[in-house]
Amino acid sequence: MGESRGAWYRVGGLLLIAAAVTILPSSPALAARAPAKNVIVLIADGCSHEQYTLARWFKGAPLALDGIRVGAVKTHSADSVIADSAPAASAFATGVRTSNTFVSVGPRDVTLSVVPRPDPELRYRPLATVLEGAKLLGKSTGIVATSRVSHATPAAYMAHVASRNREDDIMEQAVYQHVDVVFGGGKRHLLGKRDGGKRADGENLLDVLKERRYQVVETRDEMLRCKAGRIFGIFAMSHMEAEIDRQDCTPQQPTLEEMTRKAIEILSKNPRGFFLMVEASQVDWACHVNDPAHLLSDLFMYDRAVEVALDFARRDRKTLVLALSDHGTGGMTIGNRTTSATDSPITMEILLEPLKRMRVSAPALWNRVADDKTAEGVQRVVKDGWGIEISTEDAHRILAVAERDKDFPENGFGEVICPAYTAIGWTTHGHVGGDVPLHAFGPGRPAGLVDGPEIGKICAAALGLDLAKLTSRLFVEASNAFAKGGRVFLDQTDGHNPLVKVEFKGKAAELPVNKNLIKVGGVASEVEGVVVYAPDTGKIYLPLQAVQMIKGTVKGMPDITLPAAAKVVRSRAPVKESALPAGASP
Amino acid sequence: MGESRGAWYRVGGLLLIAAAVTILPSSPALAARAPAKNVIVLIADGCSHEQYTLARWFKGAPLALDGIRVGAVKTHSADSVIADSAPAASAFATGVRTSNTFVSVGPRDVTLSVVPRPDPELRYRPLATVLEGAKLLGKSTGIVATSRVSHATPAAYMAHVASRNREDDIMEQAVYQHVDVVFGGGKRHLLGKRDGGKRADGENLLDVLKERRYQVVETRDEMLRCKAGRIFGIFAMSHMEAEIDRQDCTPQQPTLEEMTRKAIEILSKNPRGFFLMVEASQVDWACHVNDPAHLLSDLFMYDRAVEVALDFARRDRKTLVLALSDHGTGGMTIGNRTTSATDSPITMEILLEPLKRMRVSAPALWNRVADDKTAEGVQRVVKDGWGIEISTEDAHRILAVAERDKDFPENGFGEVICPAYTAIGWTTHGHVGGDVPLHAFGPGRPAGLVDGPEIGKICAAALGLDLAKLTSRLFVEASNAFAKGGRVFLDQTDGHNPLVKVEFKGKAAELPVNKNLIKVGGVASEVEGVVVYAPDTGKIYLPLQAVQMIKGTVKGMPDITLPAAAKVVRSRAPVKESALPAGASP
Repeated sequence: MGESRGAWYRVGGLLLIAAAVTILPSSPALAARAPAKNVIVLIADGCSHEQYTLARWFKGAPLALDGIRVGAVKTHSADSVIADSAPAASAFATGVRTSNTFVSVGPRDVTLSVVPRPDPELRYRPLATVLEGAKLLGKSTGIVATSRVSHATPAAYMAHVASRNREDDIMEQAVYQHVDVVFGGGKRHLLGKRDGGKRADGENLLDVLKERRYQVVETRDEMLRCKAGRIFGIFAMSHMEAEIDRQDCTPQQPTLEEMTRKAIEILSKNPRGFFLMVEASQVDWACHVNDPAHLLSDLFMYDRAVEVALDFARRDRKTLVLALSDHGTGGMTIGNRTTSATDSPITMEILLEPLKRMRVSAPALWNRVADDKTAEGVQRVVKDGWGIEISTEDAHRILAVAERDKDFPENGFGEVICPAYTAIGWTTHGHVGGDVPLHAFGPGRPAGLVDGPEIGKICAAALGLDLAKLTSRLFVEASNAFAKGGRVFLDQTDGHNPLVKVEFKGKAAELPVNKNLIKVGGVASEVEGVVVYAPDTGKIYLPLQAVQMIKGTVKGMPDITLPAAAKVVRSRAPVKESALPAGASP
Repeated sequence: MGESRGAWYRVGGLLLIAAAVTILPSSPALAARAPAKNVIVLIADGCSHEQYTLARWFKGAPLALDGIRVGAVKTHSADSVIADSAPAASAFATGVRTSNTFVSVGPRDVTLSVVPRPDPELRYRPLATVLEGAKLLGKSTGIVATSRVSHATPAAYMAHVASRNREDDIMEQAVYQHVDVVFGGGKRHLLGKRDGGKRADGENLLDVLKERRYQVVETRDEMLRCKAGRIFGIFAMSHMEAEIDRQDCTPQQPTLEEMTRKAIEILSKNPRGFFLMVEASQVDWACHVNDPAHLLSDLFMYDRAVEVALDFARRDRKTLVLALSDHGTGGMTIGNRTTSATDSPITMEILLEPLKRMRVSAPALWNRVADDKTAEGVQRVVKDGWGIEISTEDAHRILAVAERDKDFPENGFGEVICPAYTAIGWTTHGHVGGDVPLHAFGPGRPAGLVDGPEIGKICAAALGLDLAKLTSRLFVEASNAFAKGGRVFLDQTDGHNPLVKVEFKGKAAELPVNKNLIKVGGVASEVEGVVVYAPDTGKIYLPLQAVQMIKGTVKGMPDITLPAAAKVVRSRAPVKESALPAGASP
C-alpha cells in the first residue's frame, strides 16, 4: 500500500510540477509595500545571556551579535513556565503560544493559570507558519539546521503535529512543502526501514524529492557545487556532527556558516525575496550535557552564520534579520562555587584556559570511555580529551552520573568537572525559564522585551503577511467545509498512510495525509498546502484550494496580506504585552 | 586631635555654609541645551535576567521594568571577568573601567589581557562622578540605598577610595559632598566608637550634618514629614532590613519605594534639575545567600521604585531613567536538576508555591536556628519559616554549610533547599559574569549592548557634562600643581585625620583629607570638591578651586560641559564598542 501510494503520486508527477509552478503571490502589489523583502531568522537553540558573554570572551572580540542586540524574549509556553523547543519555535513560526512538545498546532486544553484556555476550535488545529506564508507570497523559502531537519525547531516552520517526536510525519510534510532549500541531518526519516531508514510507512522520500526536481546532496562539496534551484542537503542519517568533532569525524559535512551562505546565495536569486530559518541546534544539546567546549564551538559557528546573514542584509537593505533563542538550557554561568570570593579577580586565563584545553565534545569523550568504564579509564580520557587531571573521586562521580542518566551517560563530565575545575557553573541538564537575548537588524525590526509569539507576528508583519488569514486559507476543517451535502472520513486501511476521502455531491476525492496532493475526479494534482490530520481531536484540515477543487467552485484564493495600515514598520518602542486578561500576562 | 579637627571645622561653620551657597553652574546656558534636565539611575544590585523573569511570574503581571527594556550591559571590571559592585558602579558613575574593590578611582596596574594597562597617571587617581558633575551644574543630587550608604554602589557616586572596605573614609567624603538627599543605612560610620559607632577618627558626622543644615531623620515618619531642603535619612546602624523581614522587625524603616518617592519630591524642586541614584542593594545579598524569598521581595520593591521614577519621568518628559544591574549574583535559574525532563510542564504552581510559602529571609531563619543547631531544630525552623518539610539528611547538609561558610551560616538554606524542593537553581554564592539587562526611558536613553563605562558617559552626555573636564577640575594632583615654588605634604600626626599641608610662596594652607575644606591665610572655607589622598601612590588630589585659592590666582572655574555638538541625543542604534585595541575588546 505504501508502494501503491508512491505510485499514486508518480502518476501525476509531471502534472504536479506544473501545478506547483502556478503558485503565485496572492496580492503582489500589496506585498511589495511590505517593510521587508526578505526575513532571516537565526536561532541559537537553548542559549541564554551568560553563554553569549562566555562566547565573547572565548572569541576575544565582540560577537557579530553584539552589534544588533535589541532586547529580550519571553519564552514560556502555553502550559509550562519552561518551554521546550517545539512550542517556542512554533510561537516564532506562527505567532501563537502553544503547549510543550506541540509543533505549530494550537495548544491543548490545560494551560498555565495566566494563559487563557484556548478556544475549542484552536486546540490541536494546524497554524500556518511564516514560511508557508512566504511561499504563497511567491518568495523562496529555506531551512538550515545542524540537527535532523525534522527536529522540533525546523519542524515548527514546515510541519504541523501535536508531538515533536512524530518525525516521520514531520519529514513527510517537510518534503511536500516545496521548501526551496533544506540543509541539515535526518536522512533516516526520508527512508523506509528496508532502505536503512526509520520510516514505518515504507516510503522513499528521497525519490519523491528527486521527482520534485530537488538536487539532493549529501556532502559539503556537493552542496557548494549547487548554484540555483531546489536543494535538499541531507548530511547525516541522524543529527549532524558537533562542530568541535566535525573536522576530525565528518569533514565532509558543511559548517553552519557554509550552509547559511549557500542558502542565502540560492534563495536570494528570487526577485520576490525569501524567508530563511537557520538553527544552531546543538547549542542546546551542549548545554543539556553541561559541555562547554561543544557549546563554544557551536555558538561561535552560529555567530559566524549571523555574520553571513548580516553581511547580506547590510548590502541588501531590505532584509529583516532576527537572531534569538527559543529558551535557555543548562543554566550556565560565568562563575561557580569556586569563584565566590568577591575580592579575588577572575582573570581571562582562569576563565578560558580550562575551556581551551577541551578538544572534543562530552559524548565523544564518553565514547572513548566505553571500553574502560573504570575511574582510571575516565581519568585518562578526561586528561587526553579535556586536558584536565581529575581526582579518582571525581572520576567515580562521573561514572555514577552515567549510571543515573542512562540515556545521556556523558552528562557527568560537565556536571562534575565544570564546578570543580573551571570557572563555569550549571544548574540543570534541562531547560531554564528566563528571558533570552533578542538581536535584530533591518526593516521592521523589534526592540525591547518581546513575547515569544510576537516574534512570529513581527516576521509576518515584515513580509506584509496576515497569519490568521493564512491559517484560514491553508487549514480548513474538513467536516465543517463539507457539512452540507458531503462526507469526509479517514481511510486508515494502511495504518501508516492514512488517506482522507471526501464525497461531495457524487464526486469523490482522495487526499493523503501529510502531503500536498489531491486526486479528484480521477485526476491527481498538487495543492498549495499539506493535508493535516489531528488524531487527538479526529479532525482533518485541508487547504481551501482542495475544498474548492472538490466543490468545483474555484474562486481564486483569498488575500493573505495585511492591510497596508498594519504594515507600518514597527516602532522601536518596547513591544506591548499581547492582549491577555488584565493583571494576568507575565 | 579628632576633636580639634571638628572644632577647626566648626570655627568656619557659618562662613562655610555661605560659601556652599555660592556654588553655581559653570555654564548654565550650555547646560540648558543638554538632552535631559534630570537623570535617575536605579540599580538592582546583583540581578540577572532569570531573576527578572521569576519576579514577573511572582507578580503575575508585567514588571514596570518590562516596558523599558532596551538591551544589556557588559559588566567586567579592569581586572576580572566577574566584577564586584565597586568597579561596576564606578563605571556607571565615572565612565571609566576600574579594578575590583576600587571606588571611583583609576585602576591598578594589573589588568585583564584585553584591557589596556592604565596610564600611570590614571592609576588610583580619583575620577569625578556624574553626581559631582550634576552638583557643579547647579542641580540637586540624591542617593538612596537599602545598604549602608557607604557601601560600594552608593559610594561610587560620592567617594573616591581604592578599597570599598574603607567605609569610614567613604562616609566622610559623602557627608562633605553636599549631596542634597541621602537615604539608607550606615549610621555606625557617622559616629565615633565613643558614640556607639565605628569611626576610628572619633568624629561625629551627625553633628557635621546638622551644622550643614541637614535635616537628619531616622524613621520613615520623620522622612515623610520633610518637605524640602537637605535631608540625611539614616535608618539603621548598619544595613536596612530585608524587605521580607521589615514589616515584622523594623516597620519604622521606609521602603525603597517610599525613599525613592520622597527623594524625587525633594530633588525635583530645583529648577535646574537633579541627579538621583537608587539602589536595591539587597537583591545582591539575597542572591549571594541563594535566598529566593528575600530576592523576590526586594526585587519586587525595586520594581515599584522604578515605577515611581517612571511616573515622574513620564510626566516630566525631561528625565532620563536608567534601570540596570552592576553584575549578576548567584547564577539563579528557573529550572534545576529536578526539572530536567523536557516533556513535563512546569506549572506556575510548581514554580511559585514553594516560594510563596517562604515568609522570612534566610538570615532571619538562621537566627531562629541559633538556639538549637540540630537537624530537628533546622527542620522545625524551615517548616515554620519557609513552609517546607525537609529531610533529616538535608537538615544536616544545611548545618554543614553553616560550618563551611562561617561568615554566612545562612547559606545552606537556599543551597540545599532550592535544588531539591523548588524549581529554582543556583550556581554560586558569588557573582557571575554574564551581561545584565538594561532598561531605559527618556531623553538620551541608550539601546543595545552597552559596555559598563558607557553608562557613565551616557548619564554625563544626557546632562551635557564632560567627565574628563570635571575630573581635571575636581582632582588636581597636588605635587604637580605646586611643583614650582611650593611644597605639599601629608601631616599624619593624627593617623585617623590626615591633613594636607601646602606651603606656597610664603603662604600656608591646610586641607583635611576626605573633606571639602580649606584653611588658607588663617581663614577657613569650603571648596567645591573633597580632598582625596591615595595611599597606594602617596598622591594627593585637590580641587582646582583650592589650588587657585592657595596660589591666589582665582580665575573662575573651567567649563565642564560638553561641546554642544556632542550633546546630541544618543541614537537608538546599538552603542559602539569603546575604543580598545582592535580585536581585543570583548
